[in-house]
Amino acid sequence: MANIRHALNTRRADDFAAWYQEVIGAADMAEESGVRGCMVIKPWGYGIWERMQRLLDDRIKATGHDNVYFPLFIPLGNFEREAEHVDGFAKEMAVVTHHRLISDGEGGLKPDPEAKLEEPLVVRPTSETIFGDAMARWIQSWRDLPLKLNQWANVVRWEMRTRMFLRTSEFLWQEGHTAHEGEAEAREHTMRMLEVYRAFAEDDLALPVFAGEKPEHERFPGADSTWSIEAMMQDGKALQAGTSHYLGTSFAKAAGIKYQDREGGEQLCHTTSWGVSTRMVGGMIMTHGDDDGLRVPPQIAPWQVVILPMLRDNDGDEVVLDYCAKLASMLRQQTAFGDPLRVNLDTRPGKAAQKRWDWVRKGAPLIVEIGGRDVENDKISLLRRDRLWNTENGKPAFRDPSPEEFTESAGAELEAIQTALFEEARERRDDNIRRDLTTFDELRDFYSSKDKYPGWVEMAWSRPTGEALDKVVEQLKSLKLTMRNVPLGDEGASGPCPFTGEPAVERIYIGRAY
Amino acid sequence: MANIRHALNTRRADDFAAWYQEVIGAADMAEESGVRGCMVIKPWGYGIWERMQRLLDDRIKATGHDNVYFPLFIPLGNFEREAEHVDGFAKEMAVVTHHRLISDGEGGLKPDPEAKLEEPLVVRPTSETIFGDAMARWIQSWRDLPLKLNQWANVVRWEMRTRMFLRTSEFLWQEGHTAHEGEAEAREHTMRMLEVYRAFAEDDLALPVFAGEKPEHERFPGADSTWSIEAMMQDGKALQAGTSHYLGTSFAKAAGIKYQDREGGEQLCHTTSWGVSTRMVGGMIMTHGDDDGLRVPPQIAPWQVVILPMLRDNDGDEVVLDYCAKLASMLRQQTAFGDPLRVNLDTRPGKAAQKRWDWVRKGAPLIVEIGGRDVENDKISLLRRDRLWNTENGKPAFRDPSPEEFTESAGAELEAIQTALFEEARERRDDNIRRDLTTFDELRDFYSSKDKYPGWVEMAWSRPTGEALDKVVEQLKSLKLTMRNVPLGDEGASGPCPFTGEPAVERIYIGRAY
Repeated sequence: MANIRHALNTRRADDFAAWYQEVIGAADMAEESGVRGCMVIKPWGYGIWERMQRLLDDRIKATGHDNVYFPLFIPLGNFEREAEHVDGFAKEMAVVTHHRLISDGEGGLKPDPEAKLEEPLVVRPTSETIFGDAMARWIQSWRDLPLKLNQWANVVRWEMRTRMFLRTSEFLWQEGHTAHEGEAEAREHTMRMLEVYRAFAEDDLALPVFAGEKPEHERFPGADSTWSIEAMMQDGKALQAGTSHYLGTSFAKAAGIKYQDREGGEQLCHTTSWGVSTRMVGGMIMTHGDDDGLRVPPQIAPWQVVILPMLRDNDGDEVVLDYCAKLASMLRQQTAFGDPLRVNLDTRPGKAAQKRWDWVRKGAPLIVEIGGRDVENDKISLLRRDRLWNTENGKPAFRDPSPEEFTESAGAELEAIQTALFEEARERRDDNIRRDLTTFDELRDFYSSKDKYPGWVEMAWSRPTGEALDKVVEQLKSLKLTMRNVPLGDEGASGPCPFTGEPAVERIYIGRAY
Repeated sequence: MANIRHALNTRRADDFAAWYQEVIGAADMAEESGVRGCMVIKPWGYGIWERMQRLLDDRIKATGHDNVYFPLFIPLGNFEREAEHVDGFAKEMAVVTHHRLISDGEGGLKPDPEAKLEEPLVVRPTSETIFGDAMARWIQSWRDLPLKLNQWANVVRWEMRTRMFLRTSEFLWQEGHTAHEGEAEAREHTMRMLEVYRAFAEDDLALPVFAGEKPEHERFPGADSTWSIEAMMQDGKALQAGTSHYLGTSFAKAAGIKYQDREGGEQLCHTTSWGVSTRMVGGMIMTHGDDDGLRVPPQIAPWQVVILPMLRDNDGDEVVLDYCAKLASMLRQQTAFGDPLRVNLDTRPGKAAQKRWDWVRKGAPLIVEIGGRDVENDKISLLRRDRLWNTENGKPAFRDPSPEEFTESAGAELEAIQTALFEEARERRDDNIRRDLTTFDELRDFYSSKDKYPGWVEMAWSRPTGEALDKVVEQLKSLKLTMRNVPLGDEGASGPCPFTGEPAVERIYIGRAY
């Protein structure tokens, strides 16, 4: 195999964390803002998030939810009501204490002591308590149920160690909040939204995930049970990519969300909440990126086809530009995934070869270059981002279809890229799960081996609770391991639990995690 | 004319402010949140905002802008750099001073004194300064220009007196920020975005506006010139519905946004900013609402057609539901404004007649009722929201087309409603502008008359500046009047200025305002 000169300086195999930082910069996705823990999401990164939003929003609306908007600020009192919930968040919230600035007398500004709020306001870390207040006002009888709401918003959790997209003090997300007549319906809805997330991750982002239940100590603060989708990154670490919570009646009790049931009695609602955030963008990068930059799945690529005219600042340029414009217009009549193709004719100043590598690093699925000679031959130069290299000669694997051939096949090829990215990720994940370990010693040996990116294990365990669970968590922590989830469809387990010695009851995924 | 029993308690003619509050509740648009100055935007209100967002976003992208996302928090230092800008906002900003809560020892919570921020953070009231920081990093040469960015976000301005949609402490908006090579290009872009807003208001919201320049004292803090679109509400008051600012080089100077020009010299960029907010929803309500509730222009209606099956809890219900579902499906194949019709088959519990009035108050453009007898006759009962009443008998003006007739005409009828709402609003506005007043005494007499909703005047003036302008502002203030804008295409003026006695140079709109 020829020696390939990759477009990034860092190889994934050498230093995954450094590679991640580099690819975000090289793909022009985002950058540090100078405001502690907050990032600036740049056009390519935000364009990908907008596509994700659109696709997930369609799925959320298709399951009968309405979008709403609730205040950014939550009164302190809301957090005082739900003890378990506030314990989970109290350590990391931004607090607004003043509503005016005045001169500090030295040419600067300071909060005006005269404008101190009577009750400080918290910048929402999540909105269960304030949705709960409204639900209590809006719900009177079983006829008002189910109430199914969703919100797209920014939230703030004061993080000490941040990493772009994965953990930032401010992030963007959607949070769904629903109220139901009873436990069965609420649990069913929790699972429905988990399935929405699974389908969104796998079908729209080409991100293979395991949907399953989080162990007790990983539950959302105040929840009865928490479910997640878990993805494996290319360094073998797990990323929790979305969660769906059955909240029981605890939030309903705290906020007074009651309804008159069909027999005329008063009942507490059973509520759910579920969220997916810009963290998903980080997961997409760490799943599909390679040593040349990002590879964006076509379904969420802001531009699916980029056309680069090769101009020479002479009279021939106009012919090339016309030819490119005609191709762009033909392509825009075509569809992929049922939508018209998103085609960018990139006429910014700069050399085509340099711009080619910009788009390779950004991960545009199909890159087309057209120069004067191509026009004469009625051929285009086509690069498919997920099959970038001719491994025999180490050069970019250009193809040269005619514009008509390309136009006809582009939609299908984009769909094929989506499938190929998914299959590649799924195979890699499945190859990196050990299912044959049965004792803690084996587990320790496995994670103490020289393998830099060891992946996950799936192990039988006895699902302990309370202090017994705490001990398991500590044992795993000594190996820097965490429990991810018990996947849906788990068929149970037999034999002794490697942690407690009790009879095992189910199999759980274990790994290092973001 | 028959006596009509309108669906709201308050008449616009009696108490416009009370009517506005009532219609927001009756149309289920929004409500007070319990958090000072912040509202909850409910599904129907948020659905309308989502439609506005989609349409305006398309227009912003079509003019070459990329969406991005910048931090919610802005360091205090950013505000210290641009003196004129901070003077304009300093009085009304939410300030984050702590990043953690702890127990107050009495069962409550308080900001943790150990977690005080070294530099307080301001919740963005607008983002010129933080976009400026990034532009300074991103722009090196003329090749990087123009840089055209837009952001959809929440912003906070601490308002003492709030009114839903019109003035809330937190509101949603888009803010565009661009950088250009010189004054001419930047000014041209300022005007381009003003035209985008005009077209959005008039074509998408059926909101007639005057696009024009604000007088000096009404400029955005730090701007060289500010342009606006101004709409007249049904009480004759003005609403500034969007603004576009040419910022000159003042923000570029403060943030260091420089570029190497085509000759190799260093230059400051010329920047612009422009924004439209959820205030536009308030303007839409006050323009199109009537004594029966809201009337939503079809282009922004979340549902354009609502179908109400009249059920009797008997065996016939299934036939009615099937018939309704078939009609909904036929309608969804049709288009209005180039998009598939948005059709809601409302099968929630409740009586059809009651639900009809809910949808009248919400302002769904076309409301269809179908009962067993309609199915037998193959006819539907159709209400057009903007022609609700049969004025001869005071009853709802139902028509009874066949489903096929209705399906074929629905798209065109929705487009006709859009035009009718616009024309109605434009005629009302133009009827309420006096253009013949030439002295301040005439102005005073006009606004001291008994007319409850006197509308605007368009008057010649000399465009004074500085102290002379301050005097005019004071004179107008004594009549509770403000200057709105000098409309584009103004042909100048002659004769003496009614305020200064100097020769008049242009004509300006004057009125009471929100």
